[in-house]
Amino acid sequence: MKLLNESKTFGGRYLQYSHQSSTVKGDMRFSVFLPEAASDKKPVPVLYWLSGLTCTDENFVQKAGAFRKAAELGIAIVAPDTSPRGDSVANDDAYDLGQGAGFYVNATQAPWAEHFQMYDYIVKELPKLIEANFPVSDRRSIAGHSMGGHGALVIGLRNAERYCSISAFSPITNPINCPWGQKAFSAYLGEDKQTWKQYDACELLSDKHAVLPMLVDQGDADNFLKEQLKPTNLVRAANEHGSALELRMQPGYDHSYYFISTFIDQHLAFHHKCLMD
Amino acid sequence: MKLLNESKTFGGRYLQYSHQSSTVKGDMRFSVFLPEAASDKKPVPVLYWLSGLTCTDENFVQKAGAFRKAAELGIAIVAPDTSPRGDSVANDDAYDLGQGAGFYVNATQAPWAEHFQMYDYIVKELPKLIEANFPVSDRRSIAGHSMGGHGALVIGLRNAERYCSISAFSPITNPINCPWGQKAFSAYLGEDKQTWKQYDACELLSDKHAVLPMLVDQGDADNFLKEQLKPTNLVRAANEHGSALELRMQPGYDHSYYFISTFIDQHLAFHHKCLMD
Repeated sequence: MKLLNESKTFGGRYLQYSHQSSTVKGDMRFSVFLPEAASDKKPVPVLYWLSGLTCTDENFVQKAGAFRKAAELGIAIVAPDTSPRGDSVANDDAYDLGQGAGFYVNATQAPWAEHFQMYDYIVKELPKLIEANFPVSDRRSIAGHSMGGHGALVIGLRNAERYCSISAFSPITNPINCPWGQKAFSAYLGEDKQTWKQYDACELLSDKHAVLPMLVDQGDADNFLKEQLKPTNLVRAANEHGSALELRMQPGYDHSYYFISTFIDQHLAFHHKCLMD
Repeated sequence: MKLLNESKTFGGRYLQYSHQSSTVKGDMRFSVFLPEAASDKKPVPVLYWLSGLTCTDENFVQKAGAFRKAAELGIAIVAPDTSPRGDSVANDDAYDLGQGAGFYVNATQAPWAEHFQMYDYIVKELPKLIEANFPVSDRRSIAGHSMGGHGALVIGLRNAERYCSISAFSPITNPINCPWGQKAFSAYLGEDKQTWKQYDACELLSDKHAVLPMLVDQGDADNFLKEQLKPTNLVRAANEHGSALELRMQPGYDHSYYFISTFIDQHLAFHHKCLMD
């Protein structure tokens, strides 16, 4: 790991690293917040934050205002990048495909399959790296925004034994039924739509009862609400097997970090309760 | 005024505008946070935030995490840009002169004098515009970071009747005695150093007792501390006439917004007390 940036904040430390990932076969960046309380004798739990389209590891750490509450609660935060990057990595001119748009899947199709293995990176390689190098426990929760909200829901639902709780802001809840998801999944996974369902939160919830608690906030002034995000599909799917989803429609809020910053403290408190259980 | 962006946040509103400024003779941008409580019947006081070198009106509003506390306290925040901008405005290739580096002075020298009238813009034109168009009172405080900390100190000290309190993070306290200030003042004000003193917080404090309370936070891991910021000069000058300066050296903190976000709530509480007096 190579340290790129370091700043003291709220008594703890903000750290940014790059490392050579064997999963995505290239350099990956991530950001970490470590509360002052974290030590090898007193490891702290970790919230993984997955960001949305066009984002890097830095958007959340700069704009969400999450470190104050995380410091108070004694929670570490890890924010990975949203895809592999670099001149040798496949890309597309559109903002919603390729670099910055990994969609947290393991791609099976050329030219994406070589590097775009974000599902395995987030589920397996990154937590192993974090737990080997920082004073954190193996208590994990996962959260995200938009494409990252989709990632958090899918990864949490498929790996309930690895996480304590799931939350999302404005998630793409049903990617197999929206333009962003259909475009990305066609490219990364190919035209056999059966292979798409493992990466769709609504499909996963329709299939069985979810054991983890889920908190979702969605602004009702979000421009992407009806065409891309479809939160009512998530509620319907969660109800099929009585999964514990709290979805809150927040009146007047949009898709931005001004929305996320307003409610991030409540998400951190929700995860804290589950992480400490 | 032209509305460029609007988002609901912490129950209030983030707004970004451009307007045609008669003072700087061109378009200027500013950002505003209005707490939910603000109304024509119940106008709220305003904190003006002046940003540092290279910044626009957006850095503070995105990175400081200030809106949560401002909403709670019922304070509006106005963050102007740091200089005039545009193809027809004089500029320099360096980051510390020209666009993004107005230094909150009224330039007297070519080619800067035509547009770089930031002192008058901040003191006169902007508050008039804000108070005519938003549900705010004429209770004002002023704060800033680095170059903007210099601006806040100088503007507050020279216009005590217009403000209730002054605060700064990592301010350039003594620009006539540091490289950033000497370069900028030479360009904007010319070689007669007598004209520089009206824009130097240490000179102003050495000249007379300051009637406004001042809070300054300075990280001791700030790379610019010794060569550019010189907080001990400010303490010495404030002591000459018994001016009320609280300067806090914060161990381990650097020059970044990770530092500002850590202590911004305390600055807002300090201003709130003075604004409500």
